[in-house]
Amino acid sequence: MNLGIAGRRAILLASTRGLGRACAESLAREGVHLVVNGRTAGDVDRAVDELDAHDVEVTGVVGDASTTETHDALLAACPEPDILLLNGGGPPPTPFGRIDEAALTESLRATMVSPILLLQRVVPGMCEREFGRIVTITSAMVKSPNPMMALSVGPRLGLTGVLSGLSKSVVKHNVTVNQMLPERFDTDRQQQMARLVMKLRGVTYEEARAEQEASIKAGRLGRPEEFGDAFAFLCSAQAGYISGQNLQLDGGSDEGVF
Amino acid sequence: MNLGIAGRRAILLASTRGLGRACAESLAREGVHLVVNGRTAGDVDRAVDELDAHDVEVTGVVGDASTTETHDALLAACPEPDILLLNGGGPPPTPFGRIDEAALTESLRATMVSPILLLQRVVPGMCEREFGRIVTITSAMVKSPNPMMALSVGPRLGLTGVLSGLSKSVVKHNVTVNQMLPERFDTDRQQQMARLVMKLRGVTYEEARAEQEASIKAGRLGRPEEFGDAFAFLCSAQAGYISGQNLQLDGGSDEGVF
Amino acid sequence: MNLGIAGRRAILLASTRGLGRACAESLAREGVHLVVNGRTAGDVDRAVDELDAHDVEVTGVVGDASTTETHDALLAACPEPDILLLNGGGPPPTPFGRIDEAALTESLRATMVSPILLLQRVVPGMCEREFGRIVTITSAMVKSPNPMMALSVGPRLGLTGVLSGLSKSVVKHNVTVNQMLPERFDTDRQQQMARLVMKLRGVTYEEARAEQEASIKAGRLGRPEEFGDAFAFLCSAQAGYISGQNLQLDGGSDEGVF
Amino acid sequence: MNLGIAGRRAILLASTRGLGRACAESLAREGVHLVVNGRTAGDVDRAVDELDAHDVEVTGVVGDASTTETHDALLAACPEPDILLLNGGGPPPTPFGRIDEAALTESLRATMVSPILLLQRVVPGMCEREFGRIVTITSAMVKSPNPMMALSVGPRLGLTGVLSGLSKSVVKHNVTVNQMLPERFDTDRQQQMARLVMKLRGVTYEEARAEQEASIKAGRLGRPEEFGDAFAFLCSAQAGYISGQNLQLDGGSDEGVF
Repeated sequence: MNLGIAGRRAILLASTRGLGRACAESLAREGVHLVVNGRTAGDVDRAVDELDAHDVEVTGVVGDASTTETHDALLAACPEPDILLLNGGGPPPTPFGRIDEAALTESLRATMVSPILLLQRVVPGMCEREFGRIVTITSAMVKSPNPMMALSVGPRLGLTGVLSGLSKSVVKHNVTVNQMLPERFDTDRQQQMARLVMKLRGVTYEEARAEQEASIKAGRLGRPEEFGDAFAFLCSAQAGYISGQNLQLDGGSDEGVF
Repeated sequence: MNLGIAGRRAILLASTRGLGRACAESLAREGVHLVVNGRTAGDVDRAVDELDAHDVEVTGVVGDASTTETHDALLAACPEPDILLLNGGGPPPTPFGRIDEAALTESLRATMVSPILLLQRVVPGMCEREFGRIVTITSAMVKSPNPMMALSVGPRLGLTGVLSGLSKSVVKHNVTVNQMLPERFDTDRQQQMARLVMKLRGVTYEEARAEQEASIKAGRLGRPEEFGDAFAFLCSAQAGYISGQNLQLDGGSDEGVF
Repeated sequence: MNLGIAGRRAILLASTRGLGRACAESLAREGVHLVVNGRTAGDVDRAVDELDAHDVEVTGVVGDASTTETHDALLAACPEPDILLLNGGGPPPTPFGRIDEAALTESLRATMVSPILLLQRVVPGMCEREFGRIVTITSAMVKSPNPMMALSVGPRLGLTGVLSGLSKSVVKHNVTVNQMLPERFDTDRQQQMARLVMKLRGVTYEEARAEQEASIKAGRLGRPEEFGDAFAFLCSAQAGYISGQNLQLDGGSDEGVF
Repeated sequence: MNLGIAGRRAILLASTRGLGRACAESLAREGVHLVVNGRTAGDVDRAVDELDAHDVEVTGVVGDASTTETHDALLAACPEPDILLLNGGGPPPTPFGRIDEAALTESLRATMVSPILLLQRVVPGMCEREFGRIVTITSAMVKSPNPMMALSVGPRLGLTGVLSGLSKSVVKHNVTVNQMLPERFDTDRQQQMARLVMKLRGVTYEEARAEQEASIKAGRLGRPEEFGDAFAFLCSAQAGYISGQNLQLDGGSDEGVF
């Protein structure tokens, strides 16, 4: 399927590892020029090297994706992006009673305020150029909040509301705004969590992995390349009528009818 | 993007016109062998002829997609489908007070009971063969019911519930069950509705069309080929982690956050 | 709190036992005249006797609440109801593959078609008299369908869609249409299920009950009188601005944010 | 209906006017001792005077409900609240492009961080005492975000997610956490908005009000006392099985099925 985006330009936050990296791979394969971003020069250099196998321009920007400095560098490398991937880590699980004002404020800044500030710099140009694909990697939790994850789900759901409103005002300019809600993909993060479970509960790595797989109705973890290709589809020319959606990639695990 | 389904076999209900026809086109392009279906031999023959341009086998089955006879013919033409498109028309708008028991029972039979009976014949084989992609074309109304459309939205939402439950039990066999929720695509149906509005309100065809376009936040009707390609993506090998979803293709028009 | 409905008249389907019976009790206490209904004369007579302790008129109608004959008898006993409770049993759990066409059609008739036919007889008068409170007891499943419960959740969700549409067209006449979604109340039904679990799994009754309680986030089953009072509130004069709602009474168990 | 809360103690934020004031009235009538709060001594004194007509203790706390100082004063006046109403104003409509980082951060602090900090001080005691009713007045917008209201809907939806998670962990202690979603009640605010429309569009006050009424499916604005009584019901002893709910009081206006 021709996605109709060869030659387009994308800025991809937090894209040197895991799901963000898979998104980069799928776009590069489709001929999209990329600005990738990660926190360390090592990660960024490695990603740029690997992605250079594709016949596209790949630029790396090292830095925390939530800072104005990094936004400046990303936009310097790609002043007129057609595609923007919003992505970033989240704070660790914290019981409600131990949420710290400073930690909450920082999570709100990094996960909610910062993406809004970047969008304000990117959206007007997309609207003028009559093409934009904005995709946020958030979490399945935004539809079913977990009591231990308030520090993460609060800012993520807040951003969800802002993006939902934004989507309604820009779709007439062929700018779409969608979110992807992953649940348990086979990335470094799930491997780290499996190792954590090994230590905490004295099980083997294989047992910890089997538990992860059993927690998903599909009976397996998601493959990052599946995620990347779904992202590429949402970025395609022919996805311009799909906006304001929250697409779950969770192996059918969500209980809700909607 | 390689969807990984070349050589797969699909049964597509009500696929000689409109959105169903667009789904057939996108799958044929990806190398999927098709059984198409329509109510008249003329429609079916025309669709088969046109789809033959692709290098796939295309078989036509004439008949009402909601009858056991048609199901028999479809399964005779393709005993082991990998992909199933559930699609069909709906009853006309009817005020609540004028809903007739017979019309309601018939709508339930055609829109809800019949698809379930067909699924019972198709799903076990998909599970055994460890591949299945079941997609239903329903309506944006299932998330925001309209008082004039009870005859249609009732059965459609009933089916939505059954499919949601089914999705949870088969995804472990790589069988996914998703729905697509279109709003105002540029098919025969919207053209008929525009002509109806011309007569009822004494406006020009262009004015009636402009009203349709203005009712969509994207400011335009959807293009059938956009719908077809989204369908093809949901049928892809790499969409196996996406199940139980209700994907809206509505030009960003839905008001809800989820 | 004065609910402002003393002297109003209510028809309550399936109200001699369980949640329906609790609804009758709460309304009688508020001075609402009642028509109660159950399948056996014994149940109906007992309920009428008990409810007679309140200073209201109580009439009993014996019969299957899904039949036209019973509807006729209910409306003969109360030609101008202000309040209508839609309630009824459901079919047993059935795997998708074993759903029988006849059983599905019967469940649709009893759970979806029959209530619509009764509403068509009741709603116009409520609109004329500018007061109506229609409440349906459905199931928490309508928001999170269970694969074993297609026979029940399909018709219930279909009815949910019809009621959602209806609610939008009658609220201007002070007629509200709401649903209540219970999860595990301490009625005969949960006691039967506990006894079933005793036999099937060889546990004690107390163990079976403890499992039921543990499955609810509140750590307990709901009390029928809690349900009855929530119903009474939805029927109150001051609940006229609340319509189209699906109120869950589930001890906080639903996972979804909405 | 006896709500079973006579003698309980409530802290009600922003409760000297509008919906908060109506909540105070309904609780006072049920015999709940109150701490009311408003920004000016005049408002607070007037509310205390009026509420003194009921046979309950009423204490007034003057101050911005989002500050630690006000929280201190509220908890000094009522160290062991059984009921907590979270309520507060919101920022003005602002287009996405004009959202200011400082204004967004301030809205997050006032609408999301501050309530969380107050809850951390209140919830443990409620859990120990095995009774708590936490109700937040939010907005219908949290389910259908408006592009002009990002400054308000973002923080409100963020808080919704945190409260949804919290509700799941405390309901076992008979502490419920619910939200109320009002749409157009007849308070000072709607009157101000009508006067604003008069000026901006040159219509009469009556015309501006008629437009407000026509925007609601019920054809009227809500009455504050309807809101207050729904709040009182959610605070009742018998509402302990209802938690994690988002109850819309919108005259049936929401389009969504759920």
